[in-house]
Amino acid sequence: MTVQLQSESTVRTVLVTGGAGYIGSHTVVELVENGYECVVVDNLSNSSYDSIARLEILTKHHIPFYEIDLRDRECLRKVFEEHKIDSVIHFAGLKAVGESTQIPLRYYHNNILGTLVLLELMQQYKVSNFVFSSSATVYGDATRFPNMIPIPEECPLGPTNPYGHTKYAIENILNDLYNSDKKNWKFAILRYFNPIGAHPSGLIGEDPLGIPNNLLPYMAQVSVGRREKLYIFGNDYDSRDGTPIRDYIHVVDLAKGHIAALKYLEVYNENEGLCREWNLGSGKGSTVFEVYRAFCKASGVALPYEVTARRAGDVLNLTAKPDRAKRELKWQTKLQVEDSCKDLWKWTTENPFGYQLRGVEARFSTEDMHYDARFVTIGAGTRFQATFANLGATIVDLKVDGQSVVLGYENEKGYLNSDSAYVGATIGRYANRIAKGKFSLGNNIYQLTINNGTNANHGSIGSFHMKRFLGPVVQNPSKDVFIAEYMLVDKGEDTEFPGDLLVTVQYTLNVTEKSLEVKYQGKLTAGEATPINLTNHSYFNLNKPREDTIEGTVIRVCSKKSVDVDKNMIPTGNIVDRDIATFDSTKPTVLGPIEPQFDCCFVVDEDVKPRQVNTLNNELTLIFKAFHPDSNITLEVLSTEPTFQLYTGDFLSAGYTARQGFAIEPGRYIDAINQEDWKDCVTLKDGETYGSKIVYRFS
Amino acid sequence: MTVQLQSESTVRTVLVTGGAGYIGSHTVVELVENGYECVVVDNLSNSSYDSIARLEILTKHHIPFYEIDLRDRECLRKVFEEHKIDSVIHFAGLKAVGESTQIPLRYYHNNILGTLVLLELMQQYKVSNFVFSSSATVYGDATRFPNMIPIPEECPLGPTNPYGHTKYAIENILNDLYNSDKKNWKFAILRYFNPIGAHPSGLIGEDPLGIPNNLLPYMAQVSVGRREKLYIFGNDYDSRDGTPIRDYIHVVDLAKGHIAALKYLEVYNENEGLCREWNLGSGKGSTVFEVYRAFCKASGVALPYEVTARRAGDVLNLTAKPDRAKRELKWQTKLQVEDSCKDLWKWTTENPFGYQLRGVEARFSTEDMHYDARFVTIGAGTRFQATFANLGATIVDLKVDGQSVVLGYENEKGYLNSDSAYVGATIGRYANRIAKGKFSLGNNIYQLTINNGTNANHGSIGSFHMKRFLGPVVQNPSKDVFIAEYMLVDKGEDTEFPGDLLVTVQYTLNVTEKSLEVKYQGKLTAGEATPINLTNHSYFNLNKPREDTIEGTVIRVCSKKSVDVDKNMIPTGNIVDRDIATFDSTKPTVLGPIEPQFDCCFVVDEDVKPRQVNTLNNELTLIFKAFHPDSNITLEVLSTEPTFQLYTGDFLSAGYTARQGFAIEPGRYIDAINQEDWKDCVTLKDGETYGSKIVYRFS
Repeated sequence: MTVQLQSESTVRTVLVTGGAGYIGSHTVVELVENGYECVVVDNLSNSSYDSIARLEILTKHHIPFYEIDLRDRECLRKVFEEHKIDSVIHFAGLKAVGESTQIPLRYYHNNILGTLVLLELMQQYKVSNFVFSSSATVYGDATRFPNMIPIPEECPLGPTNPYGHTKYAIENILNDLYNSDKKNWKFAILRYFNPIGAHPSGLIGEDPLGIPNNLLPYMAQVSVGRREKLYIFGNDYDSRDGTPIRDYIHVVDLAKGHIAALKYLEVYNENEGLCREWNLGSGKGSTVFEVYRAFCKASGVALPYEVTARRAGDVLNLTAKPDRAKRELKWQTKLQVEDSCKDLWKWTTENPFGYQLRGVEARFSTEDMHYDARFVTIGAGTRFQATFANLGATIVDLKVDGQSVVLGYENEKGYLNSDSAYVGATIGRYANRIAKGKFSLGNNIYQLTINNGTNANHGSIGSFHMKRFLGPVVQNPSKDVFIAEYMLVDKGEDTEFPGDLLVTVQYTLNVTEKSLEVKYQGKLTAGEATPINLTNHSYFNLNKPREDTIEGTVIRVCSKKSVDVDKNMIPTGNIVDRDIATFDSTKPTVLGPIEPQFDCCFVVDEDVKPRQVNTLNNELTLIFKAFHPDSNITLEVLSTEPTFQLYTGDFLSAGYTARQGFAIEPGRYIDAINQEDWKDCVTLKDGETYGSKIVYRFS
Repeated sequence: MTVQLQSESTVRTVLVTGGAGYIGSHTVVELVENGYECVVVDNLSNSSYDSIARLEILTKHHIPFYEIDLRDRECLRKVFEEHKIDSVIHFAGLKAVGESTQIPLRYYHNNILGTLVLLELMQQYKVSNFVFSSSATVYGDATRFPNMIPIPEECPLGPTNPYGHTKYAIENILNDLYNSDKKNWKFAILRYFNPIGAHPSGLIGEDPLGIPNNLLPYMAQVSVGRREKLYIFGNDYDSRDGTPIRDYIHVVDLAKGHIAALKYLEVYNENEGLCREWNLGSGKGSTVFEVYRAFCKASGVALPYEVTARRAGDVLNLTAKPDRAKRELKWQTKLQVEDSCKDLWKWTTENPFGYQLRGVEARFSTEDMHYDARFVTIGAGTRFQATFANLGATIVDLKVDGQSVVLGYENEKGYLNSDSAYVGATIGRYANRIAKGKFSLGNNIYQLTINNGTNANHGSIGSFHMKRFLGPVVQNPSKDVFIAEYMLVDKGEDTEFPGDLLVTVQYTLNVTEKSLEVKYQGKLTAGEATPINLTNHSYFNLNKPREDTIEGTVIRVCSKKSVDVDKNMIPTGNIVDRDIATFDSTKPTVLGPIEPQFDCCFVVDEDVKPRQVNTLNNELTLIFKAFHPDSNITLEVLSTEPTFQLYTGDFLSAGYTARQGFAIEPGRYIDAINQEDWKDCVTLKDGETYGSKIVYRFS
């Protein structure tokens, strides 16, 4: 325990300003991989929170995020109050050279004031490590001096545009501030050359608003048809092929440069500060044509291009001399332009429109702007849409042709009601009852808190419905298909179950088919084994706009066979028939105002003895059908699971009353963990993957 | 009339930021002298509103003033809303090189953000002329280049301290902003060399807080004993006498440079903008010893000095090449170092502690911070203190040994009550009654509004008690003497009297003597002649803390003789005796609860036939004595005037009731303007000076 505390106390927290942006987001990945905690501040003026949501999934880590403009001192102060910040990496800033010449005041105001407020707060909160995102732009045209290509850090500065002037002014501020208190401040000024590429995961990359200014994003947009052709500004330079030479650097290499700089500051002489500049470049120049060819090769597309006149201000060669970074930071680029093109192509094809997708909307579900308490809607504006919450990876709403068909609350407060009936939530770590809350695994016996009669139900006090999931990654792989993926790192220490469990809940909405597929996966990241049984607890009312009751709903199930339970609702070992219509029955079961009541576990196929903890390879089986004559809406539920609980909502609570919705909960047998025959299918061992799938289909 | 309107419409308004500071205040003088209206904004962080109050007296002009930090956008916006600004001269900024190296963030934040907000508002309000206060500091050490002394504007920039960096950054901002919209902006960047000296009036000058950084203010403080001796940093430079050479420029010359630049912008090509730099320097270098000798000569004091080591960063010679300003702005320096030293000496000796005087306090008399609605107290913390208002140059309070002895209101609202009884106010343009409000001057007959029975009283509707006086200039010429001087430009068009009258009211408080002298002066600045009769309308209660009545006050006057009046209160031509104790009477007159009542005009000396409009050369005559046995306070009133009205306050109003105070109003005869014998002494002709004096003395 002592060791653990020690290691906790050495976790260092980095405030990343502009962390939702291109370089910032890639740096967050590297920070987390290097064991840092990150707090991201971004005003989202040229970025999207989706990058942070994706970072959470990519890093399997919660990334506290604040939508704050750095110039808002009191808001930013709260971040310093709420977190013990050890270091700051400062990316936030407007960065388009062309735009800066149009609206220089905004550039100066944003970039300089933002930095000043940040530094003032660092001073107040005694944070002294600062890594600053500068730019090779501060050198201006280095070719105006003899022998300054490749460009060393000693090259005299002379930016030629407002953007560069702001970076230059901030470098001066840092130097002046360092000189005012040399023992305290540790400033690393990183002068980037040309960052390109994307994360190899394809999850994050550059998402420029408007017409891209740079070669690579422009080519990417041409490659997916968003732009007609590439313009090459002059092929009459004195280079290998007539096009200008620049120093391109893979964004992941660049991100790693920040870690190197930060670590350099951290271990720097305790008794003195520093303010030092490092070029982050490869030292290798590539021509425009070389990069063009590399991207065409990576994408397999011969992009159309046109050579036009030289662009004012462009010069032949701006290549970095990266020796200082190599010598002092022990950092150098490892990836090539070819890698960048490959990764950019993956990012582009998997996210042709970047983060901002049509048909995806998000709103805050609390009064404050908490980004981890959002409701995200996919399929917005279509005939079938679904809304989810981070809390419980909950299905907040499903709308069929504009008509809501599930119960759900307007805001997070409804879900946080301790009396709530798991409305729409992901149920875990163990759905359904565990007798007396007790189970054994290996040589250990575990006791969960009893929360339901004499049993532990739905994961008891560690229930997923009150847990905040990471993400989502939202994607739109084809026109009518939307995916939203949530993740939960369910640590043993936060629950009564053994082991750390990594759970993903992936929702796939198909607008054409009006289907929502829910795919659960789980893996232990620590520990030997755990019980597991995941499902969703949506309550359906197919006639919701008309009546606050399920009365009149016509239902059929795949099987009358149901798990017999004793007075404590625990299986007796028998399978019994229930009085309910199956798909073959001549008459369906019609739900009345009070009767029939169900809260029982139907067995899909009595002959199948489930052993597998991963059912993803199972066929999807139609298990339940419901129809309401007033709305004419039909629901079909399919799953890979051996059983499903049918519950007619007779004890609905927390704002809802009896029979306002019915729940279908496909999953494993009740109390399977304590039943020899069923135990295997709910025991997840280290190295295995839990899997299951549910599909809700409407017509 | 048409001509007048045209000339009015061409008056241009200049927003002067930092206008309360050293160079700013001198520039306001030149602006007003060149026919501009000025609006001053200053956060007073390193300056005093007193400079503005003094500017009002110096320029005989109201200077609207706003205590605003430029960074407070919404406050600054109000200034743009309330005034039609034509041009901006931007002085505001922190400016101490040494301090800037200690607190660089504050310098960047203040100087850069202030400028950005100002420019943003200019953009919004379509103000395009901008004169910027830059500094030769932007050149850094120009001796690092060959042939750059004297320094031309083309010298490469390279400031070496945070202060210089802020100026440099702002120059970049201006260039970038100009480039973003070249047709619109007109920017003059003025690079000052070493401004020294003060206004020859001695009213305004440099008032540095803390230890002065610069040679001249430092010498000035040594000369008046505030510093022990002058330090000369190195006498081993390669100059005429071993001390470094700088380009000193008289602040009045510098101020005129701003007018030249502003006029250059105003007449510049209508269809294009500009952003251009001009050195403002003399082109003539002086050594430290040369300046030292000049100041010793001007002051007649051989200042002690000590030569110490060279100061880091100092270089041999930083002299301006001022040719561009001479050629383009038609401006060059006219004053010499000797003039500067002479004017600095005058400023220093007349204001050894600058603007901030011990024993002087001010407070706002309205809920908002209106600087022209202040109550200023002189002698604060002493045994005799007086408080005045700009409104009516009113005596708000007099305190004898901490005891208030006059009536007065807590705030301006009380004085603005239309029912008020002229409490404490300066009475003018014509104190006391004019029969039927009618008088003739030359061939013209004038009619004033009847406001008192059948007569016009106390200036009628143009009464000074509702007029806002300029100033005050507050001075403390010797330890126990305080002077507060107010001024009113009483334009004929704002009144019913003929001609424009310039009035000064000078209060001189002598703490030792417990005396307050009131000196009135008046001069016509337009018109041929005007009636004039000025006095003060304080109500005394020598027992005020104990009783809200004058009952028990023992009074005596210099003469029983009083002007006999008819039923309309207009002189019959007779002089009659009143039943009142004179200084010689065996028994004094004691004021009772109701009786005796006086509201009559006593004649000081029946034998003197006053003809002079200026009585300042008259002997001060003791005219009235009062004493209250409970407080043991005696009041003596002396004046240069032929009569005085004694009024026992029997009709006091506006929060006061009968006999809460008595008034003594020394002045000229009632209705003198219509009485042949007395008319001369109330007729002020063009070229003449009206003068009179009252002294209130307590013991």
